[in-house]
Amino acid sequence: MRKSIQSLARINNTLSFAPRNCFYATVQSKAVRYEKFGNPLEVLKVENVDIDTSVKNDEVVIKMLAAPINPADINTIQGVYGKSPKSFPAVPGNEGVGIVEEVGSGVTGLKKGDHVIPSNGGLGTWRTHLVCKAEDVTTVPKELPVEYASILSVNPCTAYRLLSDFAELKPGDVIIQNGANSMVGLMVIQLAKLRGIQTINLIRQRQNHDLTVQRMKQLGADIVMDYSFASNNTKMSRLLSDLPKPKLALNCVGGDAARIVTKYLAEDGVMVTYGGMSRQGITVPTSPFIFNNITLKGFWMTRWVETHSKEERQKMIDELSKLVIDKKLLALVETHKFSEFNYALEKSFEDGQERKVVLKMNE
Amino acid sequence: MRKSIQSLARINNTLSFAPRNCFYATVQSKAVRYEKFGNPLEVLKVENVDIDTSVKNDEVVIKMLAAPINPADINTIQGVYGKSPKSFPAVPGNEGVGIVEEVGSGVTGLKKGDHVIPSNGGLGTWRTHLVCKAEDVTTVPKELPVEYASILSVNPCTAYRLLSDFAELKPGDVIIQNGANSMVGLMVIQLAKLRGIQTINLIRQRQNHDLTVQRMKQLGADIVMDYSFASNNTKMSRLLSDLPKPKLALNCVGGDAARIVTKYLAEDGVMVTYGGMSRQGITVPTSPFIFNNITLKGFWMTRWVETHSKEERQKMIDELSKLVIDKKLLALVETHKFSEFNYALEKSFEDGQERKVVLKMNE
Repeated sequence: MRKSIQSLARINNTLSFAPRNCFYATVQSKAVRYEKFGNPLEVLKVENVDIDTSVKNDEVVIKMLAAPINPADINTIQGVYGKSPKSFPAVPGNEGVGIVEEVGSGVTGLKKGDHVIPSNGGLGTWRTHLVCKAEDVTTVPKELPVEYASILSVNPCTAYRLLSDFAELKPGDVIIQNGANSMVGLMVIQLAKLRGIQTINLIRQRQNHDLTVQRMKQLGADIVMDYSFASNNTKMSRLLSDLPKPKLALNCVGGDAARIVTKYLAEDGVMVTYGGMSRQGITVPTSPFIFNNITLKGFWMTRWVETHSKEERQKMIDELSKLVIDKKLLALVETHKFSEFNYALEKSFEDGQERKVVLKMNE
Repeated sequence: MRKSIQSLARINNTLSFAPRNCFYATVQSKAVRYEKFGNPLEVLKVENVDIDTSVKNDEVVIKMLAAPINPADINTIQGVYGKSPKSFPAVPGNEGVGIVEEVGSGVTGLKKGDHVIPSNGGLGTWRTHLVCKAEDVTTVPKELPVEYASILSVNPCTAYRLLSDFAELKPGDVIIQNGANSMVGLMVIQLAKLRGIQTINLIRQRQNHDLTVQRMKQLGADIVMDYSFASNNTKMSRLLSDLPKPKLALNCVGGDAARIVTKYLAEDGVMVTYGGMSRQGITVPTSPFIFNNITLKGFWMTRWVETHSKEERQKMIDELSKLVIDKKLLALVETHKFSEFNYALEKSFEDGQERKVVLKMNE
């Protein structure tokens, strides 16, 4: 993924044609766009785009404040994600936060100055301004730091649902997760701790391993181990002898890491797959299905939003916002100026899933 | 598994000691027994056992009529099954049918002459007589041929539950199964046909392949194919283009055969594993969990019985019995005299899961 990047000046292919309809108010915005699937470092261009800000009845104009670069965004641009843009040129970016600048006459529940996040993916957040239907966004508290607001709707919400929807977890219960140092993994650790649920966390052996373990424990992780430890039956049996068996296993890695977390599941336990970072399938033995009655499920935030009410989502957003404002839910965020988009994009490819690269859109 | 078998005469280690308590009525019975886990051809012995037939309040004496040799019995004897005998010497055999010969004074709902099958596994049916609690057996109609009665409680019941408990199947819906020529597979085909559910059936390429396919179609199979056809995307796409996607996939094989049936599942589809004939784990890609919301479950008849009411089971047994009596549910049964147990045991190891070896206990 390391390759030289065109300078921002060269890819700023300013579109200088006059607005189609000069009676309408316009604002000049900047947007990242692509015309075809491919390597993001090659197909993405930052372009000047004139935006028609004379909103219709049910529309709002949003000035974006911050937007993260997520793996799902990269995979969408590469054309290997479960959802594709409806047409080209397309603006990437599924998450972000903006401030409402104009409100259509028919819009209720939103006003100028509100902070909003997308109601679901696909809005195209990597731009300074956008016009959308009021229903496409959800308000968040203004006290919420914009970096956090911009990353609230996918990873923290995923962690929230993983802990809520697949097993009845009581204080003292145990869950096990792989890829535990991912952003979702770290959110799971913190949300579980707040509910008194114990976490067994599997991570890769890495540089600064001890520091990583220490940070995870500071966030509330009960047990952290690498995969070689988790593969050692004797060590694991000794370690787990005093704990209830995990009711829930979370998998964002696949391959052998999926098998390991399934292995320790309690009877009637559930493993939920919400990612596949290793790009390997999930291999599990037959016997726990038959004799231990385990279930394997999947989770995708996009689908959850599509199949649940706005109220249910708002409740979750409000709860998570409050936890962030109260400093009970932390995330490692690395912000970059939108004017240095290509540098930020390159940084997002660097190893270390736990820190999120966020674009500050007005810088 | 082919090896010379000791003659029956040599392994009939008649136990000739006097009954422990001579006041009690006894009957001399024959029972297959084993003292330790191992190769069934080596550890099993047919022995004479005196049975105390002076039943307690809640007990019944059963004269066995027929009992099948199932793969689960073999695996139990080998010590590789999910359930083991409580103590040794143990009598193998989880299924069978018998006739009630004596009834304890406190028993209601059972009378002399009733035909009964075990309420769950572990009763030890490979013997001519047994004494058990009345609640350990369930009545079946006397019109039910004993060969069928003896195999009713595992394979037909498994097929019944697989079609009833994991997906809401309406007439016209489609299911896909591997190992479709197994006895459960053939039961699934017939029960599905009776409900108007279409079946896609995957089998191994084999000698007499056309004959096998023909027989499966006679039983009601809509589509039968081998695994190489099912692995060919182009052929499969063409074949399946006119069908609704399968809501349910059934897996008794594992390995690649499990992946293939999962691949064609509809959104929200469920794959149920009820066996692992290939002795390979289940490998499935990550994406259908996330983007297609599939679920993987397991099924084990023994657990179902333990977690459901006697009434629910009786309803199923009655329905299936009626279908057999009405000749709407067929099975291939190969009967052997119990006096030729070792020969029958050897035959049960032969390839061709679809025919069941059943011991006639009074021959």
